[in-house]
Amino acid sequence: MNRADRFTVDGIPCEPSYRNAVIDQIVRHSSVRDFDPNRPVPDDLVRVLVAAAQSASTSSNFQSWSVVQVTDPDRKHSLRVLSNDQPFIDQAPLFLVFCADIFRHRWVTQRQGYSFGSDYMDLLLVAVIDSALACQNAALAAESLGLGCCFVGSIRDNPGQVSDLLELPPGCFATVGLAVGYPTRQNEVKPRLPQSVVWHRERYSTEHLESGVAAYDARMMQTRIYKNRRVEIPGVTPEPDQDIGPYGWAEHTARRMAKGNHLRRGMGGFLREKGFSLD
Amino acid sequence: MNRADRFTVDGIPCEPSYRNAVIDQIVRHSSVRDFDPNRPVPDDLVRVLVAAAQSASTSSNFQSWSVVQVTDPDRKHSLRVLSNDQPFIDQAPLFLVFCADIFRHRWVTQRQGYSFGSDYMDLLLVAVIDSALACQNAALAAESLGLGCCFVGSIRDNPGQVSDLLELPPGCFATVGLAVGYPTRQNEVKPRLPQSVVWHRERYSTEHLESGVAAYDARMMQTRIYKNRRVEIPGVTPEPDQDIGPYGWAEHTARRMAKGNHLRRGMGGFLREKGFSLD
Repeated sequence: MNRADRFTVDGIPCEPSYRNAVIDQIVRHSSVRDFDPNRPVPDDLVRVLVAAAQSASTSSNFQSWSVVQVTDPDRKHSLRVLSNDQPFIDQAPLFLVFCADIFRHRWVTQRQGYSFGSDYMDLLLVAVIDSALACQNAALAAESLGLGCCFVGSIRDNPGQVSDLLELPPGCFATVGLAVGYPTRQNEVKPRLPQSVVWHRERYSTEHLESGVAAYDARMMQTRIYKNRRVEIPGVTPEPDQDIGPYGWAEHTARRMAKGNHLRRGMGGFLREKGFSLD
Repeated sequence: MNRADRFTVDGIPCEPSYRNAVIDQIVRHSSVRDFDPNRPVPDDLVRVLVAAAQSASTSSNFQSWSVVQVTDPDRKHSLRVLSNDQPFIDQAPLFLVFCADIFRHRWVTQRQGYSFGSDYMDLLLVAVIDSALACQNAALAAESLGLGCCFVGSIRDNPGQVSDLLELPPGCFATVGLAVGYPTRQNEVKPRLPQSVVWHRERYSTEHLESGVAAYDARMMQTRIYKNRRVEIPGVTPEPDQDIGPYGWAEHTARRMAKGNHLRRGMGGFLREKGFSLD
């Protein structure tokens, strides 16, 4: 295996005895945004992806997630427009929309003759986590079969319209999209924060935060990932022609957080309307 | 490969050409709750699990998750007591607590001199999903290396005390625990709902819900998984000696939902205190 991976990109040592086909697949992940639009994903392969998704752990065997497969070009285009208008969603022959889903649980409670007694926010977390675990398994399974994937968080940009388009019932909403297809271009594996920043022993520590972020900034500036991608906040960030200071993960992330995404406001109200408790 | 897996257990057809080492690992998953307490997980192996976790996709490269590794027996025991008192948490030599983490993002926004402008609930979802994707990759990587895992959602039973014990900063809370160790007993692969119930084409459909749940009930009753595990709700379910009707996934899940879990109430208030917006 000569391709770059998490270990080589981030300089993380790994005993050869810990390498195997599964680890190799996981650490080679990079998002694909360039697909062959003329090579569909066979239906019996999608079935394998769903089997992989179903194999993930699920809280109390509730299986509180669903997936809506969208291949119809017009419907996929509508989802593209609703999801930050990203062209690769048109290009990908398959778009899987993973949903947190407690519709079935309300339904089965009523079917068995009981009153629903789990109206609390933790059930939302149960379902969101279930949907994410399922999606990750499907994505890795797809990658192992030569497909490329891109996770699409912007499926939550317009949750009401997405819900209407996919006819999602009460208790069900789209958490993450997965564009899937045969890649025409493979991206490089993106460096991540040093392990010392995200990995804590016994208790959370900020001891390595400053030095780790500084090192990561230097590493990310090398990659030119942020070239032509500076976030502008009118009246706050410098005018574009003056915006020439160092720009790495820290500055990019800080500007993203400062600017926010107005489309993502109001999720709480949407979820309440959709039948989730936030208490 | 003679072991049972998702395909054989649920009768899902799979073209041999779609089988590979990654798919095989994914579809063989079952939770492990019996660990060799005397065989620790080497630190350089944990490093590989963290590398796998970091290789998962992350919304906007925010990397809004952290993991706290707990191996100290006393601290692990405290987490056991806080997490539904499950004995296998003592037994597992390694307990990984995955956290949704936007502490770093508030910190970096201030560090770069900006005001935080992302106080909305979607950021909570971003971080919860990031933490789940990371955890799933770590779990699969562990399984590929001969370890067993059990996801521990009950880490959210006492979120405040867990947060205090792990010294989690504002903007950070435990979403899911992962007990990890060398298995002394392997559980069977658990049947899942028929694919027709969770997998939808173009739009959500309840067409196969009733028949699918009925078939799943019959299948789950065969497994005797619910033997001695009937949920009692005083005044609602029959007296134990009278509780002899058919009992499968539908009845078990309905009773779980009807009863609720009083420990999981109040998550909304906890998260607001912890610095998350639910708007």
